[in-house]
Amino acid sequence: MTPEDAGCQALMMSRLEALGFTFEIFDANGVSNFWATRGDQGPTLAFAGHTDVVPVGQLDNWHTPPFAPTEIDGELFGRGAADMKASLAAMVVAGEAFIAEHPEHRGRLAFLITSDEEGPATDGTVRVVEALQARNETIDWCIVGEPSSSERLGDTIKNGRRGSLGAVVTVHGIQGHIAYPHLADNPMHAAFAAFDALTKEHWDDGNEFFMPTSLQFSNLQSGTGATNVIPGDLTAQFNIRFSTEVTDIYLRHRCEEILGRHNLKFDIEWTLSGQPFLTEPGVLVDATSASVAEITGETPTLSTSGGTSDGRFIAALGTQIVELGPVNRSIHQVNEHVNVADIARLTKIYHGIMVRLLAA
Amino acid sequence: MTPEDAGCQALMMSRLEALGFTFEIFDANGVSNFWATRGDQGPTLAFAGHTDVVPVGQLDNWHTPPFAPTEIDGELFGRGAADMKASLAAMVVAGEAFIAEHPEHRGRLAFLITSDEEGPATDGTVRVVEALQARNETIDWCIVGEPSSSERLGDTIKNGRRGSLGAVVTVHGIQGHIAYPHLADNPMHAAFAAFDALTKEHWDDGNEFFMPTSLQFSNLQSGTGATNVIPGDLTAQFNIRFSTEVTDIYLRHRCEEILGRHNLKFDIEWTLSGQPFLTEPGVLVDATSASVAEITGETPTLSTSGGTSDGRFIAALGTQIVELGPVNRSIHQVNEHVNVADIARLTKIYHGIMVRLLAA
Ligand SMILES: [Zn+2]
Ligand SMILES: [Zn+2]
Repeated sequence: MTPEDAGCQALMMSRLEALGFTFEIFDANGVSNFWATRGDQGPTLAFAGHTDVVPVGQLDNWHTPPFAPTEIDGELFGRGAADMKASLAAMVVAGEAFIAEHPEHRGRLAFLITSDEEGPATDGTVRVVEALQARNETIDWCIVGEPSSSERLGDTIKNGRRGSLGAVVTVHGIQGHIAYPHLADNPMHAAFAAFDALTKEHWDDGNEFFMPTSLQFSNLQSGTGATNVIPGDLTAQFNIRFSTEVTDIYLRHRCEEILGRHNLKFDIEWTLSGQPFLTEPGVLVDATSASVAEITGETPTLSTSGGTSDGRFIAALGTQIVELGPVNRSIHQVNEHVNVADIARLTKIYHGIMVRLLAA
Repeated sequence: MTPEDAGCQALMMSRLEALGFTFEIFDANGVSNFWATRGDQGPTLAFAGHTDVVPVGQLDNWHTPPFAPTEIDGELFGRGAADMKASLAAMVVAGEAFIAEHPEHRGRLAFLITSDEEGPATDGTVRVVEALQARNETIDWCIVGEPSSSERLGDTIKNGRRGSLGAVVTVHGIQGHIAYPHLADNPMHAAFAAFDALTKEHWDDGNEFFMPTSLQFSNLQSGTGATNVIPGDLTAQFNIRFSTEVTDIYLRHRCEEILGRHNLKFDIEWTLSGQPFLTEPGVLVDATSASVAEITGETPTLSTSGGTSDGRFIAALGTQIVELGPVNRSIHQVNEHVNVADIARLTKIYHGIMVRLLAA
């Protein structure tokens, strides 16, 4: 359970060590991270992933023990099966096959593995990326093993993610008695029109790769509990998932302008969880699509939808990034599972990407 | 402290008994109530009031012990001094003087006293009124001793009160992840415009006696606490203080129409705390104004503003009702007090009303 690695990274490293990888460990605050490389010249292809998992949820609703991988009718059940232990296994096994065939591969093959992706993500991938930046080391291409597939393995790959910008707004009014509203200033009455305008604002039309930018409120609280008191303030939280058509700076200014235009007396605190990033079709997308098509017979759809991922941190290196992993239907739920045959096919797809990009 | 009477009504009754009053006791659920009458023919003039008080608040901020009446520089300090023990004393002493002078007064002089005015008011005045209604007994004129004066004793008398209608609205949406808003239905986004319309609705212009009807939100809550979850519902409370220009039926229908027009999926629970009531200038208002003017030299202003009072229950008897009592500046606060000289003047005013309406 995040941020515990529970020996998973040691197992991966022992397999990679046998292949001639060298390691750097970036453990911090209970989080385990490693950066492994093989080769020292030319372009770097890194496989990135996380060994931590989310909590099991309602244990009673699991049909199998969540931490004892159990195969039933060709499906492997267990917490993390699809998100993303299967991908980690496939990466390592693909690396073993690739290096057996291409011991003198060109460039560098690398692994960037963390146990802090499902948690706050403050001591995980970002720490490794900062260390690489500090010595001007880069990653040219990165495959993140997140479960990107929606119905069939490889039907979708993510070539970017939207940005995520959060806000906490406090609206200030004047408390008073319901019977004397002229002596009070109701912060709810002031906020309704302003908040409505925020939800109706047209931010952009998205673009070829991104759906339109979207603002959603998540939490709202006002009131003393008494039914005859106008409260003195109101607190609300909202989040904006944004495309590359806008910037977080623009969004902040525009939101504050809309709130100000409605004469709201407010404070606002912003949190930028991630900038949007995009890998346009090119070397990495082409190699990935071709490898998927070879194994599955289907060319994957490019998508930038969904939540954030650690790709947002790696993007800071100017890296081309693609997310590719198993079907995500059961992730973060009880009875999480992955198709066993898909693990072997995913291994072949990862292997095909290594061949296309690093075969000598 | 409400609903405890703590012996206050027994003291009043012993004084009234000596004057020839007869009593009915309506105690229920810890609440003490009595109905006392003297005379059995002609019109009934009742004095109404409550012996319960609100909590003391921050005890440290009291300069004197709240339950030990203390006179300092002509002001009597104590919880309930102004709301409304001074009025109760004045009523009884005025009755003693009046009956000494007019033992054969016409009509009936009555007292309707409860210890459940500051609380839920479900076992207080309303119980006595129901008993009177059940036997077709009525009250023609009623003086409620609530502290109606704002700057000087008698500057304001209340000849009515606005109605009070409360609502609890639950808005139903569909919970989901912030990153997939098309799979969710945000109840806040649905509610903002509808609630804004409620706050901007023009209900009426009020009239000669009532300020315009006013709607105020008091409480609002939505959200799971998580910043990446669109919640499944929202709960809000609002209250309408309304004039005699509208009815509670109209207000309910209109609110539901406004919410429905915005395509809100909602449930609403209504609570009618009190119908508006009004005593137009006539016998009671004239007698009261004249008595105030005689003692203070100032004709009182008629007002229907402020919160609800037990007058709303008595109004169901078709009674003319006026509220008249001391200056209300310190009520429900720490260091509540009443001017000692005002108690004697209030006694003379109440006495003058008895004389004007019941002297044989
Ligand atoms: Zn994951
Ligand atoms: Zn009172």
